[in-house]
Amino acid sequence: MRVLIVPDSFKESLSADEVAVALEKGIKAADPLIDVSRLPFSDAGEGGLELISSLFKGKIIEAATVDALGRACKAPYFLFADRKAAWIELSRASGLAQIEPELRNPLITSTYGTGLLIRNALDRGATEIYLGIGGSATNDAGAGILEALGGLLTDAEGELLPQGGEALAKLDHIDVEAIPRFSLKVACDVSNPLLGPNGASSVYGPQKGATPKHIEILESALQNFAKHIELLTKTNVVDLKGGGAAGGTAAALHGLLGAELIGGFELLAELAELEKHIVSADLIITAEGRIDGQSLQGKVPVGVARLAKKHHKPVWAFAGALGEDINTLYDQGISGLFSIQQGPMTLDQSMAKTAELLEKSAERIMRSHLNTGTL
Amino acid sequence: MRVLIVPDSFKESLSADEVAVALEKGIKAADPLIDVSRLPFSDAGEGGLELISSLFKGKIIEAATVDALGRACKAPYFLFADRKAAWIELSRASGLAQIEPELRNPLITSTYGTGLLIRNALDRGATEIYLGIGGSATNDAGAGILEALGGLLTDAEGELLPQGGEALAKLDHIDVEAIPRFSLKVACDVSNPLLGPNGASSVYGPQKGATPKHIEILESALQNFAKHIELLTKTNVVDLKGGGAAGGTAAALHGLLGAELIGGFELLAELAELEKHIVSADLIITAEGRIDGQSLQGKVPVGVARLAKKHHKPVWAFAGALGEDINTLYDQGISGLFSIQQGPMTLDQSMAKTAELLEKSAERIMRSHLNTGTL
Repeated sequence: MRVLIVPDSFKESLSADEVAVALEKGIKAADPLIDVSRLPFSDAGEGGLELISSLFKGKIIEAATVDALGRACKAPYFLFADRKAAWIELSRASGLAQIEPELRNPLITSTYGTGLLIRNALDRGATEIYLGIGGSATNDAGAGILEALGGLLTDAEGELLPQGGEALAKLDHIDVEAIPRFSLKVACDVSNPLLGPNGASSVYGPQKGATPKHIEILESALQNFAKHIELLTKTNVVDLKGGGAAGGTAAALHGLLGAELIGGFELLAELAELEKHIVSADLIITAEGRIDGQSLQGKVPVGVARLAKKHHKPVWAFAGALGEDINTLYDQGISGLFSIQQGPMTLDQSMAKTAELLEKSAERIMRSHLNTGTL
Repeated sequence: MRVLIVPDSFKESLSADEVAVALEKGIKAADPLIDVSRLPFSDAGEGGLELISSLFKGKIIEAATVDALGRACKAPYFLFADRKAAWIELSRASGLAQIEPELRNPLITSTYGTGLLIRNALDRGATEIYLGIGGSATNDAGAGILEALGGLLTDAEGELLPQGGEALAKLDHIDVEAIPRFSLKVACDVSNPLLGPNGASSVYGPQKGATPKHIEILESALQNFAKHIELLTKTNVVDLKGGGAAGGTAAALHGLLGAELIGGFELLAELAELEKHIVSADLIITAEGRIDGQSLQGKVPVGVARLAKKHHKPVWAFAGALGEDINTLYDQGISGLFSIQQGPMTLDQSMAKTAELLEKSAERIMRSHLNTGTL
């Protein structure tokens, strides 16, 4: 029997790699002849860069760039060794974390620095860019990225626009001819559109420092940007699900550069060729600190289960705690849901021995299935 | 699929019947078409009479008798409705609990009252007596029982002995001709022999009020009794495993009345025809508040597993808490061991929702087995 172990980390307790090792020990204790392979995973929700660099061969490049206010800085991205690809995160150059709270101003913040990172990667030969876009300080709909790559955004007088979202109100013409061709995939786990009450400016503007007045200005500026994108490309980016991600960056990169919007988990699954691994396994084991029925989107166990379901492979999911409504998960492709707990115990006690509990519960469940046979 | 549910109670939380009902709910939630039958069980360790009267058709008889000091009292026993049998417990008439601490004296306490209960049952037509023998106040090796049934224990002058263990030192002749014939099974979960440092007087004497001097007297008296039993029946009761149970009652009833010594669980299993139920099931589910590898003897899950193993039936065991060394239980016939916990939780929290936890875990485990299929 071939078992594939694809767990997420247990937050504040074990890394995904440690979880996988513990589960493997348990499976081997039940039957040492089982062929186990480990693929520690993540939903790319946090620590994407660290995850990527642990999952794949390649190196982290510290590149010179600018932050969302145009101040010189350095930011890391990951260059794959065995493919012409880079993993870049918008939050590293154009993130909110680098901007002092009193200076946060989405009227002027720009994704230009992220564009510089992409150019750096392209200059090193990358032809595929994977862009993680959580944690941005910007509301410029990726205008800065376009400019850094050679795009020209001009007003009615033919003058280049200043950086930032506000300036897009004066946009009259877009020219992306000078931007080199490359494949772009944007990791995006939100479903907000570009405009409207659920849009980029209204929902994410305030946390980036926007006042109600700013939001009005930005809303109208992005509306103008979308209009010109449609004029140029015949692509309606207003109705694009997830187009509002990172202050509208997703919408513009999709409309102007053909970027594919894809869930963080799905993107990592593609990079790691997870589906290929699943196809060659007889049983898939996944795990996460807490599993409940509320959060179907983006989570590793559900993502794994959906891929496994396509290929009719059974999936076991282990959790430190099982929440409510977990029965909905069976429909997603999960075959068995197990708590690792073996008796009453506080959260602290449990977290102190997560590895042992994972190992023991995996052993018990595997033994049960091997011993019980067909029902 | 036919599932047989045979749980013990969860101490201080749920009765065996409530445990069985919760497990059935969970199994039915996983698949309503599964044919479930419930057989709440016990290891007869405590509450045997209540258990018997809940498991079987019949009635509790409150019979006039005497306590271990010969004082008139009433004591209950169970008369089966559909067989000529009675379940009698030595602790009910001849128990330590009925004797005030300052009056406890194993030199003179007698099992005579238990003999009266047996006679009462025989007079009502019973031909099979099942005798539970925990909690006795006596060290008379069942001499009182024999006397109450018509046996004659006499000294060298042919005089009847007074009651109590001490008098057995003067025993010179045993006559059991007048005792009616009946089948006697003694429920016995200890393995102490009649005599010696691990014997009835040395080990259990002190808790019945014996001083070191008393123990010496009783040891020698029982030695004399054993000698006369062997003279009469050619049966060596000194080496009988468990012969020391209830102050030697097990040894003498075996030697003189042919009583069969049998574990409490095995006796109940026989009465309940557990093996027949197991044979007709595809899967057996058992449960106990705590399961560990230390206590193999006499426990319901292990007893159930051993019977199921004979017939190659899978057994799942659910526990509020799983202890150490549980892997030894697989050899006993248990196929799967499961904790009912679904996350970190204190003992009190867990006990307050035992029924729900049992139900949910049974559902999860059944779903996992149904969904996973053959590995």
